Amino acid sequence: MRRFRVALGQINPTVGDFDRNVRMIVDGIERARALGCSLVAFPELAITGYPPEDLLFKPAFIEANLRALDAVTRASRGLSVVVGFVDKNDDIFNAAAVLHDGTRAGIYHKQYLPNYGVFDENRYFQAGTEAPVFVAGDTTFAVNVCEDIWYPAGPTTVQALAGAELIVNINGSPYHAGKARFREQLVSTRAVDDLVCVAYVNMVGGQDELVFDGASMIVNEHGECIARGRMFEEDLVVADLDLEAVFRARLHDSRRRKEKLRVRETATRISLPALAAPDAPALPPREVATLSPVEEVFGALVLGTRDYVRKNGFKRVVIGLSGGIDSSLVAAVAVEALGRDNVAGVGMPSGYSSTGTRRDAQRLAKHLGIEFLTIPITPLLNAYKRSLAKAFKGMKEDVTEENIQARIRGNLLMALSNKFGWLVLTTGNKSEYSVGYTTLYGDMAGGFAVIKDVPKMLVYDVARHVNARAGRAIIPETVFTRAPSAELRPNQTDQDTLPPYAELDRILEGYVEEDRGVNDLIARGFPADTVRRVVSMVDTNEYKRRQAPIGVKITPRAFGRDWRPPIVNRFRER
Amino acid sequence: MRRFRVALGQINPTVGDFDRNVRMIVDGIERARALGCSLVAFPELAITGYPPEDLLFKPAFIEANLRALDAVTRASRGLSVVVGFVDKNDDIFNAAAVLHDGTRAGIYHKQYLPNYGVFDENRYFQAGTEAPVFVAGDTTFAVNVCEDIWYPAGPTTVQALAGAELIVNINGSPYHAGKARFREQLVSTRAVDDLVCVAYVNMVGGQDELVFDGASMIVNEHGECIARGRMFEEDLVVADLDLEAVFRARLHDSRRRKEKLRVRETATRISLPALAAPDAPALPPREVATLSPVEEVFGALVLGTRDYVRKNGFKRVVIGLSGGIDSSLVAAVAVEALGRDNVAGVGMPSGYSSTGTRRDAQRLAKHLGIEFLTIPITPLLNAYKRSLAKAFKGMKEDVTEENIQARIRGNLLMALSNKFGWLVLTTGNKSEYSVGYTTLYGDMAGGFAVIKDVPKMLVYDVARHVNARAGRAIIPETVFTRAPSAELRPNQTDQDTLPPYAELDRILEGYVEEDRGVNDLIARGFPADTVRRVVSMVDTNEYKRRQAPIGVKITPRAFGRDWRPPIVNRFRER
Repeated sequence: MRRFRVALGQINPTVGDFDRNVRMIVDGIERARALGCSLVAFPELAITGYPPEDLLFKPAFIEANLRALDAVTRASRGLSVVVGFVDKNDDIFNAAAVLHDGTRAGIYHKQYLPNYGVFDENRYFQAGTEAPVFVAGDTTFAVNVCEDIWYPAGPTTVQALAGAELIVNINGSPYHAGKARFREQLVSTRAVDDLVCVAYVNMVGGQDELVFDGASMIVNEHGECIARGRMFEEDLVVADLDLEAVFRARLHDSRRRKEKLRVRETATRISLPALAAPDAPALPPREVATLSPVEEVFGALVLGTRDYVRKNGFKRVVIGLSGGIDSSLVAAVAVEALGRDNVAGVGMPSGYSSTGTRRDAQRLAKHLGIEFLTIPITPLLNAYKRSLAKAFKGMKEDVTEENIQARIRGNLLMALSNKFGWLVLTTGNKSEYSVGYTTLYGDMAGGFAVIKDVPKMLVYDVARHVNARAGRAIIPETVFTRAPSAELRPNQTDQDTLPPYAELDRILEGYVEEDRGVNDLIARGFPADTVRRVVSMVDTNEYKRRQAPIGVKITPRAFGRDWRPPIVNRFRER
Repeated sequence: MRRFRVALGQINPTVGDFDRNVRMIVDGIERARALGCSLVAFPELAITGYPPEDLLFKPAFIEANLRALDAVTRASRGLSVVVGFVDKNDDIFNAAAVLHDGTRAGIYHKQYLPNYGVFDENRYFQAGTEAPVFVAGDTTFAVNVCEDIWYPAGPTTVQALAGAELIVNINGSPYHAGKARFREQLVSTRAVDDLVCVAYVNMVGGQDELVFDGASMIVNEHGECIARGRMFEEDLVVADLDLEAVFRARLHDSRRRKEKLRVRETATRISLPALAAPDAPALPPREVATLSPVEEVFGALVLGTRDYVRKNGFKRVVIGLSGGIDSSLVAAVAVEALGRDNVAGVGMPSGYSSTGTRRDAQRLAKHLGIEFLTIPITPLLNAYKRSLAKAFKGMKEDVTEENIQARIRGNLLMALSNKFGWLVLTTGNKSEYSVGYTTLYGDMAGGFAVIKDVPKMLVYDVARHVNARAGRAIIPETVFTRAPSAELRPNQTDQDTLPPYAELDRILEGYVEEDRGVNDLIARGFPADTVRRVVSMVDTNEYKRRQAPIGVKITPRAFGRDWRPPIVNRFRER
């Protein structure tokens, strides 16, 4: 057995915090060295944090990144280190540095720049054209970046055909539900196709609307995942690869010889000074729990919220608690993310608030152990009515007065935010944001919209999980069984205005996430008038979403960087 | 003289309004035919409106666009028509159709897809690879799209070398101050470089944050602009080209022969059936006023506001009038855009509002002839203070109470919007948005931020222009001379918090629009502490801008699609 011990530094960098990112990387190098690893890899743009977006237009940002890479280079004594940074020569590149025993041995430039979904990499980077392989002693490895491994005849194939036994693929791959499974399948297929081991390292942590879920993996040439990183936590994933086995397998494989005839691109070979084989202490045992789909979503919400709050320098958050399922879940997520002492709940009842919801808000706060304030809004509503009496003379009450209530609540939460430095978490879910069943500057007011990308039916599922994992009804049972209501007029329920959520969510999934048109949705069995009404609500409420706070992306298409329709839009499907 | 009469249909399409866009184009064709034109060209994606952004992901949108092109094709009897649409085969393309006497004669696919600034064309389109030329009788012309003409060895050169005497370049080129002059210089250079006439047609109109300014042009082979389209208005620009002169000039030019040795790409030649030479009635005389820099900006604000309001189906707008320069200018723009009957002003004085500003707001409304409502906010402020008294016990008044006032005003304006269906225009300027000297959900509340991209000093200049063009002090003189103040606490002025606007605006121009770093700005002579403070304010207020309404882009970099920094960002230049 020709053993090669490889480590994946699944770290949580912060965009622009070079000192902290370097410390994390150096710490990872030291731990990998202590474990006798020959190579340790860190994620895509680990030096800068990912995605840095328009910070890439700042020359000082690029320079700080290069200085940070120098510091990491100096720390790479005794092993090979692969780390993502922004390279600069005639242009800038999304790059991986190969550091070896204290020197910079080579650089790889990402070739496939994603420019879809949340990604705008063509906006910033020049694409690379070369795919070198590195020969260190009796090991040949190669490096590429994220999207590069998604292409079946891309650099991975070229590098494997040029002799690489191990592909180190560094990633900043954002989470959406179920994506980890999909990635593992893809990486496994590449490994088998190219008869190569793959060390796939992903970032972990929240950056604005994105959550990087980790779930790094080391896959052998049979496509078997031999070590897996945790989801939503930092991790150092270490495994021993048998590179002799890769060579043996290749001797038996005729597919690979045929592929060599077809792929004409060749890879430069870069020789690295051989290092003394490190001691190989026994690897610590690892066990990584796999997460259920609902656990995954909860984990993403918690990590996304924690990192948005902390990386922005906030300590404490405040949430308007209505006694409904949405604010209950947001409060539970916040407590998990930040601790009960860092969460305040505010009840802001009006004359339309039922005894049941008022009581449930209080009970929730008590179960979570968080501070709870009550500020009734009726006096404020009456003051607005008096101030507007002349302007509204002779007009009937309508949605205007409903929105005033929501905006009073928004103003009160923002006042608490201003006075005490608390960040306001908003509580709208994806179903509401989709159809505009929200009030701008009202319930939409706040810094971070925790469940903005969670459809209502999934809100219930994740809320059930909150109770299940606690083993008790943190969220009172009546919150689950009561008909959803905004409580902005007497006896109101959401279903006065919207189709049943079970139906609405399925229509929205088709329209928003899958680009299915009206006719397609009708053909799938949804009532035609409901489909038309829902689609029209989605289309005409873009102006609201454009002013919404950001929130955690958990679906393949969230209302964020991956959703860019115009506001002025007269297109209506018939 | 071999005369070729060409027309540019400088139209104002609406994104997704296929019926209306087709009617406009067909109307333009008929007018061009009546004037004896052999060819009429319409802008980039004129069929769909531009930019359609994520509507391009809807198959039904692409299909509606193809049906609309069929309707235009049928209307092209008796001449050639060039029009922008979305072509679909293995992928979608930003395309120009060449229609000829009722049939589709050819299609050109845009080769250079912009993916910088406000543009995301790599997100949607496949790039074209072929640059055909069209031979119709004794005329050879070619077509390309927008960005294609910006590249010195791009399709224009290939097509001219292949014999094209006229390049029809169709555009959706958004305005920023001074860009029209720059474009004319560029097109003139290309014409001279390639010894070719250029018919450059640009769109006119507002689409979300973008304003297309028109300023189409017909340029001869000497680089002389022989006909120019109006700015900010629809127009049909017609001129006679002498294509014999192009051929004569080429016989004398050896540069072109040398270029042929260097450019190896060749163009397919597509023959079109010759049409009987149309009658050539005398061309109507045209005179196009050139606009001063301030007139340009005013024109852009007016058109951007009018189109946002009307294309979204609103009739009337409402503006909070503080008696300050910003809201005064916004009101004047709105009256010019929509007419005085469609603008309502609201004074919302507090105890901190001076007699002077209250009176100026009323005078402005009177001068503009708009409806004016007054809703004092002191009773509401007191109601909030009472409601928050317990929560704020023992705390001093601070910016919290200032923001409450701004948010009361936001809530009142939104209540009027909800009750009467008026769109709220917000009044913040670019200097304020840059440094976050605005209140989220307060003065930032509204549908459209008219002067969001206008720095404070330019606000004064454009406001002066408002009075100058009216020949009277529509905006009272005291509005210009009074020190700017938010009037949210006693004796407050903007300069308590901000550096003088003349200095602030120059620092912001360097930092926001030119990517100059801290050290660069200090080296340019600005005080170091001021630079650091301003840069820090810009960096830390991204969360506010992310929730701001959109507004008219008038500078090379606006806070909109061309500004995408992360919110979580720990990078601080030292």
